[in-house]
Amino acid sequence: MPKAVILLSGGLDSTTALAVAKSRGFEVCALSVDYGQRHRVELERAALIATALGAAEHRTVKLDLRAIGGSALTADVAVPKDRSPDDMGHGIPVTYVPARNTILLGLALGYAETVGAFDIFIGANVLDYSGYPDCRPEFLTAFEVLANLATAVGVEGTGKFRIHSPLLKLTKAEIIAEGVKLGVDYALTLSCYDPDATGRACGRCDSCQLRRKGFAEAGVPDPTVYQ
Amino acid sequence: MPKAVILLSGGLDSTTALAVAKSRGFEVCALSVDYGQRHRVELERAALIATALGAAEHRTVKLDLRAIGGSALTADVAVPKDRSPDDMGHGIPVTYVPARNTILLGLALGYAETVGAFDIFIGANVLDYSGYPDCRPEFLTAFEVLANLATAVGVEGTGKFRIHSPLLKLTKAEIIAEGVKLGVDYALTLSCYDPDATGRACGRCDSCQLRRKGFAEAGVPDPTVYQ
Repeated sequence: MPKAVILLSGGLDSTTALAVAKSRGFEVCALSVDYGQRHRVELERAALIATALGAAEHRTVKLDLRAIGGSALTADVAVPKDRSPDDMGHGIPVTYVPARNTILLGLALGYAETVGAFDIFIGANVLDYSGYPDCRPEFLTAFEVLANLATAVGVEGTGKFRIHSPLLKLTKAEIIAEGVKLGVDYALTLSCYDPDATGRACGRCDSCQLRRKGFAEAGVPDPTVYQ
Repeated sequence: MPKAVILLSGGLDSTTALAVAKSRGFEVCALSVDYGQRHRVELERAALIATALGAAEHRTVKLDLRAIGGSALTADVAVPKDRSPDDMGHGIPVTYVPARNTILLGLALGYAETVGAFDIFIGANVLDYSGYPDCRPEFLTAFEVLANLATAVGVEGTGKFRIHSPLLKLTKAEIIAEGVKLGVDYALTLSCYDPDATGRACGRCDSCQLRRKGFAEAGVPDPTVYQ
């Protein structure tokens, strides 16, 4: 069975992407990155999810992005609350972490090369949250080009890396519907940017609001535990 | 004065690249990455070098690449010794760290975006050590393309990132000659892959041998302290 590496944050999107990778016949190697994010409880969820969804292995890499800062998720900048979903799509959100997906995909690439995987899954999505530059298709295509120049595999011509973003153009409701079809238990996932220590969601940040709207539109009961 | 980010390992090449960035009129923000490398004493050297060469700031990011492994520099694989320089250029060395420069440049890009720099310097070199896939010009060009798609700046069109690799096609002797001209004190730098705890070089790994040969060819006294 071919191996695939999946970037698993513990959120709704990456969990669904893991389920999609499994459904496409890959043995899944899940990678989480502890990058000093505020919502660290999501890393505990990632470990539970990797087990529940049958990942072959799960590794967590520590990376202190707080040394760089520049985001509400890694510096002492407030997470925006109570914005309507219609107001979130303009400009770059303060929750944008500079070069985050470049760094995360770089780590996934190193992991893939180490375990002999050529397929990398990422739960990037352009629709619900269009302000992140590094969730766009042109970014992901450029990374795939880079990956095949950056690695021993690329030089030796023994394989070709592929970046998979199966959720790229799905709405949150469509992502949830897909995950439910694949048997994902969304109660395990955490999307909130500002959860409490026990993992209860704030219900008010952008991510919580998009998630709640997604469950409503998908006609699926929302299993999220709110504060 | 425009800012530039420089990836500073504490070795001969990155130190020279820092001096070149300064000579081109940049205010230099130096970034070191503590990625679990065996030769950690080089990080102490990086801090000394940043001060000695007048960097405006120096940050060190911790990243536990040992969670991924796959290299003699980050896993329990022996560093090759006593190979002649003529034997080093074939294939991928075991000191290759999977996707290292992708990850390091990703971090430099995040740092650059945070401090408002558009210029990133890396001491990559293809001549002396041609086995590393992610030191090749086509890799660096692909990263520059990616950088301008990955970032808020790229989306907003407010600037353009440039990747500078001023040493790319220089021999080790030419690099040393350039650094001497710019006033670099190479006694501060450490190139050895397997130094002792006090920072004395082994003199036998590939990196030590290339360095020693470089000083000899440049006609510059070798200031390295060997074990």
